[in-house]
Amino acid sequence: MRVRGTHLFTIDALLGPVVDVGQTPTGHRRVIPIIGGTVSGGLTGTVLPGGADWNLARPDGSTELWARYEIRLVGGAVVSVTNTAVHAADSPVPLLTTPQFDVGADGPVELRVGAFVGLLTPRLDEGRVQIDVHRLTAEP
Amino acid sequence: MRVRGTHLFTIDALLGPVVDVGQTPTGHRRVIPIIGGTVSGGLTGTVLPGGADWNLARPDGSTELWARYEIRLVGGAVVSVTNTAVHAADSPVPLLTTPQFDVGADGPVELRVGAFVGLLTPRLDEGRVQIDVHRLTAEP
Amino acid sequence: MRVRGTHLFTIDALLGPVVDVGQTPTGHRRVIPIIGGTVSGGLTGTVLPGGADWNLARPDGSTELWARYEIRLVGGAVVSVTNTAVHAADSPVPLLTTPQFDVGADGPVELRVGAFVGLLTPRLDEGRVQIDVHRLTAEP
Amino acid sequence: MRVRGTHLFTIDALLGPVVDVGQTPTGHRRVIPIIGGTVSGGLTGTVLPGGADWNLARPDGSTELWARYEIRLVGGAVVSVTNTAVHAADSPVPLLTTPQFDVGADGPVELRVGAFVGLLTPRLDEGRVQIDVHRLTAEP
Repeated sequence: MRVRGTHLFTIDALLGPVVDVGQTPTGHRRVIPIIGGTVSGGLTGTVLPGGADWNLARPDGSTELWARYEIRLVGGAVVSVTNTAVHAADSPVPLLTTPQFDVGADGPVELRVGAFVGLLTPRLDEGRVQIDVHRLTAEP
Repeated sequence: MRVRGTHLFTIDALLGPVVDVGQTPTGHRRVIPIIGGTVSGGLTGTVLPGGADWNLARPDGSTELWARYEIRLVGGAVVSVTNTAVHAADSPVPLLTTPQFDVGADGPVELRVGAFVGLLTPRLDEGRVQIDVHRLTAEP
Repeated sequence: MRVRGTHLFTIDALLGPVVDVGQTPTGHRRVIPIIGGTVSGGLTGTVLPGGADWNLARPDGSTELWARYEIRLVGGAVVSVTNTAVHAADSPVPLLTTPQFDVGADGPVELRVGAFVGLLTPRLDEGRVQIDVHRLTAEP
Repeated sequence: MRVRGTHLFTIDALLGPVVDVGQTPTGHRRVIPIIGGTVSGGLTGTVLPGGADWNLARPDGSTELWARYEIRLVGGAVVSVTNTAVHAADSPVPLLTTPQFDVGADGPVELRVGAFVGLLTPRLDEGRVQIDVHRLTAEP
């Protein structure tokens, strides 16, 4: 079987100033607030302020990304996003992440099921990250 | 053995307008932003804006609380709080929650270990909740 | 308010040989199989083989306990147990843990809600641990 | 960018009799024990008995898969596997899952980082599932 991804939509998330928790028992914890942004290219909407990436730089140089936040689509439906990744210090860009979506009855319910990958391109000099969400499929 | 709690500090968290995700496969998801507040009575500091309670009202009438946010103590140390609970529709107030703390090297490292209970008193008419954090101990 | 615990029942879990994953990015992971045991003193039943404690000894000397397994009560109801803790190297015994219970419609549904503490006494020379489960309450 | 998967290895896991927790507040919980199996096709080893899929059939007909277990490779290294999925009632086979790997210093440390997809083919009449693990990459 061959695995491939189909682009669904793109999240452009604006980041606030890092909140530095410091060196914890499992690594360096930094909380990166998500303060807004846009959704485009398949779904259209905005990123709501209020979530974050509770980021952990581990002793071996790898990094755990663990982000939770909401997007509001044109029409009003809210989708809750949880996006996680573990990447090496020298991982190529885009970083590959694993998004999951919690969707209400009036939202894009097809996002409730299946497997997704997010191609995350940091643009930290601009204070934002771009995430291209793809649905994975397998075919003979 | 007898279990008892010792009061450590109190979090008074200010809540923003509810972000309603709607009816999801496991219940009604509402995201309740945490937008500020104070810490007093043992530790002194502020609640940072940017986290939330990703609240889930389940089909049987019970509710899951799942909150993540940060507090900044006088002196500058940041503590990351994760607070969870499952409570019945008719649970008496205060609701009992299970907080955990991620603490950097310059923070109150004694909060990294042990078991805690949070006594959560909703004051929703004032747009806030009060959480009295106790450390649990067992003694003969 | 005063916090107290009321004993509900006791789990006596038998442990299998440790499966050593070794030094991972966040600490030393050892998987401790749960291979049987008994439930007594309020509820009566057996511990089913098949779960484990996915234990993590962290670089600062503290330990994360994360166990998931099932108990079967007399009458046939199965309760799924998730039990977690973070404890210091020199924590006094019993260790305090935070159990949660997933309960089907024909089981002890009162365990679905509220806050619990487990008093865990290792008896590693006997290959078992005893966990006294208490329900927490708060009173004026 | 194009997303693709590269096959890494195949897990063939043997399942024990289902432990039925019944109807819980968020759906029908069934615990499916993992009692053995093999690893082949890139890595060589065995599936250790002792983990499970803590499976949840949700009220909307979708299913959450949440499995944790260990594999032991030839040479002795143990890898801890967590594999999750959410799939619709009518999802085509193979089901797409999201595996993660906790790896000790003497194991295949390249599995610690990156994004993976597992192509899960149930062979329930034979009491087993086959999971083809692929690493995801993105390329222009």
